[in-house]
Amino acid sequence: MRSAAAFAPATVSNVAVGFDVLGFAVEAAGDEVALTLTEGESVRVVEVSDATGTLPDGAISLDPAQNTATVGLIKLLEDLRPGFGFDVRVRKGIALGSGMGGSAASAVAALVAANSLLKAPLPKESLLAYALAAERVACGASHPDNAAPSLFGGLTLIVSTDPLRCVRLPVPRGLLAVLVHPHVRVDTRDSRAVLRPHVPLADHVRQSARLAGLVAACFNDDFELMRACLEDVLIEPQRAALIPGFARVKAAALEAGALGASISGSGPSVFALANDEETAERARAAMVEVFRASGVAEVDSWVSHVSEEGAKVIR
Amino acid sequence: MRSAAAFAPATVSNVAVGFDVLGFAVEAAGDEVALTLTEGESVRVVEVSDATGTLPDGAISLDPAQNTATVGLIKLLEDLRPGFGFDVRVRKGIALGSGMGGSAASAVAALVAANSLLKAPLPKESLLAYALAAERVACGASHPDNAAPSLFGGLTLIVSTDPLRCVRLPVPRGLLAVLVHPHVRVDTRDSRAVLRPHVPLADHVRQSARLAGLVAACFNDDFELMRACLEDVLIEPQRAALIPGFARVKAAALEAGALGASISGSGPSVFALANDEETAERARAAMVEVFRASGVAEVDSWVSHVSEEGAKVIR
Repeated sequence: MRSAAAFAPATVSNVAVGFDVLGFAVEAAGDEVALTLTEGESVRVVEVSDATGTLPDGAISLDPAQNTATVGLIKLLEDLRPGFGFDVRVRKGIALGSGMGGSAASAVAALVAANSLLKAPLPKESLLAYALAAERVACGASHPDNAAPSLFGGLTLIVSTDPLRCVRLPVPRGLLAVLVHPHVRVDTRDSRAVLRPHVPLADHVRQSARLAGLVAACFNDDFELMRACLEDVLIEPQRAALIPGFARVKAAALEAGALGASISGSGPSVFALANDEETAERARAAMVEVFRASGVAEVDSWVSHVSEEGAKVIR
Repeated sequence: MRSAAAFAPATVSNVAVGFDVLGFAVEAAGDEVALTLTEGESVRVVEVSDATGTLPDGAISLDPAQNTATVGLIKLLEDLRPGFGFDVRVRKGIALGSGMGGSAASAVAALVAANSLLKAPLPKESLLAYALAAERVACGASHPDNAAPSLFGGLTLIVSTDPLRCVRLPVPRGLLAVLVHPHVRVDTRDSRAVLRPHVPLADHVRQSARLAGLVAACFNDDFELMRACLEDVLIEPQRAALIPGFARVKAAALEAGALGASISGSGPSVFALANDEETAERARAAMVEVFRASGVAEVDSWVSHVSEEGAKVIR
């Protein structure tokens, strides 16, 4: 009986100014998916376990066609017809609906594990399309800004989706991410629904210049430029109200010396970036404190390097 | 009688995907401004001469408060009170209303010449604000995407205007610009007026990803990525109709092997980028031919490296 397990990291997408096109992987948390080969080309969800202590019973579907860990597997089997199927065990290390890319991580971990069991494994790049099919089930749309960094690691720019084209950006040495997850539920679909379908041309200009500046800052190891660029004038103002205390949490991070802070993905998690550990820890403590003062009882937090490695086989 | 003259290069702004935030200087053409010190802190336009053969008599105001070469000088004198003024001779090497950054070049050349005559010259960076004051007269708004590259040279990203923050981007080795100026008049104000004040969020996402990808392509010397990124989904479709034959001119450039082609600034000039001289010359010939076939009698064209140097004192 052959089996394999893979880990895929949590991700921060959008990164303030890269709505739907930028994301990075964090070392701090991730999902694990273990597969056991079965006869017949079908997929069965055997177990979903929860390492976060936040998952309500039945919150993740055991129907393989509705589970983000398995939708990609089903498509992979359809395309490759390897003559076997999978029993799937998912271990969620990323809380559901946290804005930390949990659905992408489950999909990616499952595909990386499956790939390692193929006679002729695909290049990692080829797995991304399968992960995106799974994301469509989770989010109603597929934006590779979680799946791509979870799969490849690092800071990833999605240049285009059709054709799919990603660029790995260099991560300035010493960059640290603070990630804070207040236990309040924001549905990705809701947080998309609040967005106006049009943006003022002037805001497009400001935001795209900052995104471009952020890319230059990464190549130039320029933390002060990064600080100037991590300001979302477009999306954050529309979503901030969904997160209790967001404005004060962000202010606390900046006051603590963070280079910038904004919503992780569609929230409610909030991330900050810092260029030294002391600042990162100070920002983390301040952000957690403000969330607690805003009435959020449970708050998880991490300080993490950007994960350079991405998803990997662990067993 | 002390005097100085400076040259400032023509510029291609927008560069397909960097509306109002990206521009590069070309070696091919530029404006010259010669200054002679006078007593009293006033500015006089003594002569405007035309090296392009396109300037209608009286098209450039001799009123120093309305002339882009002198507005910045007036402000400089107000701020520094050097105890002298300037007689100004402008030699236009950039056709008026060509979309090649002529007003910015005149302003920049005048300021660089004036700066060289100061007892304590300012750093080049300090001249930009004065050039922008002049741009406001020419365009009704000040977008530093012409003035900054004309002053500093190279490919310049304007990260923000308040505070003013520019980043010089690396230019991939071997990159060549083709610049084609059809002698039809497009007023910058008209070409702004056609722009819708809002853009679809999806177009913002596509365009900003391409701008960010273009920045990454410059750092990585990645011409194929550059090719994928030089597609303006936002501004070009709205302005193309102002330029006779634009769609066919662009298609001809791409067919000739150019990495991309779009409108230079607000037009009517069209630029293309190529990664070798043969392709650039082929694109230039094809673009000129299509403009002629579209009924444009007079067409100027250049193949040029990106000017690394920017504005400089020449006498």
